[in-house]
Amino acid sequence: MRQNPQRRAALLDAAIEVLAREGSRGLTLRAVDAEASVPTGTASNYFANRAQLLVQILHRTRERLMPAPEDLSGPLDTKVLLSRLLERMRRERSVHIAMLELRLEGTRRPELQAELAEFQREELDANVAWHLEAGLPGDRQGVVLLYLAMLGLIVDDLTAPATLEGHPVDGLLDLMVRRLLPEHPAP
Amino acid sequence: MRQNPQRRAALLDAAIEVLAREGSRGLTLRAVDAEASVPTGTASNYFANRAQLLVQILHRTRERLMPAPEDLSGPLDTKVLLSRLLERMRRERSVHIAMLELRLEGTRRPELQAELAEFQREELDANVAWHLEAGLPGDRQGVVLLYLAMLGLIVDDLTAPATLEGHPVDGLLDLMVRRLLPEHPAP
Repeated sequence: MRQNPQRRAALLDAAIEVLAREGSRGLTLRAVDAEASVPTGTASNYFANRAQLLVQILHRTRERLMPAPEDLSGPLDTKVLLSRLLERMRRERSVHIAMLELRLEGTRRPELQAELAEFQREELDANVAWHLEAGLPGDRQGVVLLYLAMLGLIVDDLTAPATLEGHPVDGLLDLMVRRLLPEHPAP
Repeated sequence: MRQNPQRRAALLDAAIEVLAREGSRGLTLRAVDAEASVPTGTASNYFANRAQLLVQILHRTRERLMPAPEDLSGPLDTKVLLSRLLERMRRERSVHIAMLELRLEGTRRPELQAELAEFQREELDANVAWHLEAGLPGDRQGVVLLYLAMLGLIVDDLTAPATLEGHPVDGLLDLMVRRLLPEHPAP
């Protein structure tokens, strides 16, 4: 079976759009073919089955959400980094909605949930390590709390942004950083 | 059309189970009838259509998640209240998973999203007001950040709990309260 990496990535991007638009029950190999405008049967040359496709989507979301080098450039400042993270999320809504769909699908498929949790655990560990090595203010537990608060913010901003009307995001990010990552954390 | 409030609540609880188990695309009036073990056509006597059903489910989740009086009793302590909230969430997994399904469905149905956001905004305002009136430590913005961090924690705990392996929840709740709701918030 010949496989082409660009074609694979395009199929996964099509799958992300299908997930975001139709929900996880709308995701079939045929729907991916249609979304990618390729002949029926193409996706099944790349993914043995739907479960395989779901796992591959997970890995593709990581590529899509990887910060660009310029996002990590300039004098490092956690508040600026979080603002860029939020901007990137708003540009990549489909990827984040697809991730929420995968989370829900994982409540019904233990093997997907295991993969998802491992994936997120690695990401969180890497974020904590990066933050501490960069010498930014804050400690390990503070970074974990920041991850949780940002997850909550992303979920609301994606699915019901008017919930936070009256609480400008910029002020929330600012206070999050100041309170969760103090320069001198109390013991 | 005769309607019976207990029957209505039972149908909505059945709809919550269908949503949690099958996802939003599995939710039909017929699936609700089957889940509630009532004759086909019963749910359509109570809900004009699926959109009506979705809005009613939203209101039913609020009833299901209302803290019991004993959950708010005893000397008030935010950390204890959050631990009880988390326990209640774990007992009512279906309700929370159904809420996430409604959030995702709201990304595809503007009228549901508007209802959801208004519902959540009222809940958040009520939580902030309750917290401040109870005289607990912390300020308005701190309570909003606590809401976001708890939303993130609930999403991970529901969908991929192993993500937080190595970060015991009790310690996270404790630090969340201490950092986000300081006794004397800095200006």
